[in-house]
Amino acid sequence: MTRTDIARRVYNHTWKLDPIIRSLLDTDFYKLLMLQMIWGLYPHVNATFSLINRTTSVRLADEIDEGELRAQLDHARTLRFSKKEMIWLAGNTFAGRKQIFEPEFLAWLENFELPEYDLRRRDGQYELTFAGRWTDTTMWEIPALAIINELRSRAAMKQFGPFALDVLYARAKAKMWAKTERLKQYPDLKISDFGTRRRHSFLWQRWCVEALKEGIGESFTGTSNVLLAMDTDLEALGTNAHELPMVLGALATSDEALKAAPYEVLQDWRSYYGGNLLIVLPDAFGTAAFLRDAPDWVADWTGFRPDSAPAIEGGEKIISWWKSRGKDPREKLLIFSDGLDVDMIIEAYRHFEGRVRMSFGWGTNLTNDFEGCAPVPTDGLKAISLVCKVTSANGRPAVKLSDNPEKATGDRREIERYLRVFGEEDRVAHAVKV
Amino acid sequence: MTRTDIARRVYNHTWKLDPIIRSLLDTDFYKLLMLQMIWGLYPHVNATFSLINRTTSVRLADEIDEGELRAQLDHARTLRFSKKEMIWLAGNTFAGRKQIFEPEFLAWLENFELPEYDLRRRDGQYELTFAGRWTDTTMWEIPALAIINELRSRAAMKQFGPFALDVLYARAKAKMWAKTERLKQYPDLKISDFGTRRRHSFLWQRWCVEALKEGIGESFTGTSNVLLAMDTDLEALGTNAHELPMVLGALATSDEALKAAPYEVLQDWRSYYGGNLLIVLPDAFGTAAFLRDAPDWVADWTGFRPDSAPAIEGGEKIISWWKSRGKDPREKLLIFSDGLDVDMIIEAYRHFEGRVRMSFGWGTNLTNDFEGCAPVPTDGLKAISLVCKVTSANGRPAVKLSDNPEKATGDRREIERYLRVFGEEDRVAHAVKV
Repeated sequence: MTRTDIARRVYNHTWKLDPIIRSLLDTDFYKLLMLQMIWGLYPHVNATFSLINRTTSVRLADEIDEGELRAQLDHARTLRFSKKEMIWLAGNTFAGRKQIFEPEFLAWLENFELPEYDLRRRDGQYELTFAGRWTDTTMWEIPALAIINELRSRAAMKQFGPFALDVLYARAKAKMWAKTERLKQYPDLKISDFGTRRRHSFLWQRWCVEALKEGIGESFTGTSNVLLAMDTDLEALGTNAHELPMVLGALATSDEALKAAPYEVLQDWRSYYGGNLLIVLPDAFGTAAFLRDAPDWVADWTGFRPDSAPAIEGGEKIISWWKSRGKDPREKLLIFSDGLDVDMIIEAYRHFEGRVRMSFGWGTNLTNDFEGCAPVPTDGLKAISLVCKVTSANGRPAVKLSDNPEKATGDRREIERYLRVFGEEDRVAHAVKV
Repeated sequence: MTRTDIARRVYNHTWKLDPIIRSLLDTDFYKLLMLQMIWGLYPHVNATFSLINRTTSVRLADEIDEGELRAQLDHARTLRFSKKEMIWLAGNTFAGRKQIFEPEFLAWLENFELPEYDLRRRDGQYELTFAGRWTDTTMWEIPALAIINELRSRAAMKQFGPFALDVLYARAKAKMWAKTERLKQYPDLKISDFGTRRRHSFLWQRWCVEALKEGIGESFTGTSNVLLAMDTDLEALGTNAHELPMVLGALATSDEALKAAPYEVLQDWRSYYGGNLLIVLPDAFGTAAFLRDAPDWVADWTGFRPDSAPAIEGGEKIISWWKSRGKDPREKLLIFSDGLDVDMIIEAYRHFEGRVRMSFGWGTNLTNDFEGCAPVPTDGLKAISLVCKVTSANGRPAVKLSDNPEKATGDRREIERYLRVFGEEDRVAHAVKV
């Protein structure tokens, strides 16, 4: 006999908040790696992060209730690293290395809390900014994005009854599983989850990660999500992000210093990490300029993560550059992570197979692909291009040029100055979908 | 492996309305019996029903959100009798009789909808009134009360987490089960559920009804709730209510006519129903006056339902009256239904055992007894004395005197006139708990 569990039912129907972020580990691993470096080398730098919705046709402030957004952000601010989490961070092996985090850093992290936020509405969008110490504000990027993306999914699903929801997830699961079956045909294709920030929801990301674990086995190399890595015994993956050269660029007091900033970042990084973590992110101010001006030692690093040029074109340029510096690309690693779908992954894999080591960081199309899944057509489940970028450091404007002008951020006049400093070589606009 | 059902989870956490009333059958059976009579004999009479919260210390308008209340009332107005329900009403045997409802009445009922309501806030209370045809407004009594009582429970439980709720219901179940075990010791004690209007929630009433069915078996004679009777194959129980003499009293144009009204009601009733449904509700204008002035044929009816005097005292008076009219009380039925708990039920049963047939209509203490169950003390789960009474008929004020002045309703000057007409014999105040 089926008997309704009254307590469970009452709880489900009188819930106050279904927190999206329930752990400070529910973030990308690279944030923790960068955080340790920022904490060690730039503890007094202020950095402001701002939400940027590149999909301007989606009016976030109309879709997402401000009260719910504030409740989620406020809840995230109540979180602290738990004892279990601290022990795991101290005891786990990351990137093949034990004790990657210094005891002093962990002692500081133990008291970490997300700083205040500033939220306003303007023209149907949210202006969400995080101002303060770089060590604090940097940690908002992933939870803020995950919160907004999940609130948007929830808003879209409010119209669905239980059967429509059942069908929605059934289709999404079938779709996701079909992707794993395609990827399974390439046993040496290494893939990982990079989808935290753009995920449909936490539970859906977890499902996708567990599905990949079962579906492609050893080919699934891990997840960027630290919480999921801990909970599902996967490798926590990630290295560094654009905020490092962007902040150092902003802090540079001359064009000369600005030009040196991308390499200064690498030296900073090298003072903390080695091995597989020595991955260059070359496109902050244009990959062509970066490669052109790079000191030789950059070619000694383990690999590159081209993040804004088309995968094959971008990869070829790096391979040529390695060769020009006397390196064998087969010993090098390319990590692709820009707006990948299965077709692009397979195409790039087949193109470069045998010529270079590769890894694919699969993001939005992994954790937020509900196209064709909703029983009732809705744009609300379509992933958008939402980022949270550093916009100033110590009061000076921060800029990202990118290889794709569509992904550039920053003040227009500063962008022009950066373009004068770094040049415009190879910058080609591509529509940014996600 | 436990895997979260994402669709179910999303549904539970994005629900819009958890309707309290989901069927027009979720009402007391006597409303349908009375409705057929009103429809047949008083189709053009207007009657206004009003919510009366006798527990004035509880500020309902502070506890219950007005938007939620309106949403529930509005939802109830969207309900119609379903095909299945109509077939069941037409085909089921009620009170041992087939086709108790006339086909013309059922044809009319098929299109029934709850009429408009008027809701205002005043001094922390809700003024909720239903004005219109008696045939329409009478049907609001039970759903309106059930809605307000359940919204109040829900509001109180919003503070509870899942474990607190689990414990709350665990304790309430244990408490309820202990009651059935006590009642089980008296196999001939006939008891029924009269708790719809005051219930903690629909699901809890259903649990209590099913628990009684399993716990005391044949001693559980049925439920006043028509929907639960249908769904759990129980007898639908009930006869008539104070609104009948109250409306007829209000319509009376002379003191003489007013004095005759209580017996006119019985003649009206007799024209529709017989057998076990011939139950007199004697206390609308005082039981003593009713018995004193009653024509002899009233003693031929099957039984009485004393509803406001203490059970033993009230029962003795009716037994004496039967004897004075030459009737054997052992062939008569007393239905007790006023604020009963297990102690009172057992005491009355043992007192009258062998001298009269008895039945107990167990209400608030059955379906809304959470005293001592909440892990966090709260007054919000304590049942209150909330009624929905007819306050005027065709624009003339309606009055109830009751045997207990605390349960009297109506305009003070009208009450004084009624007291002059019927006398004040045997009226003793008792605190009204529920």
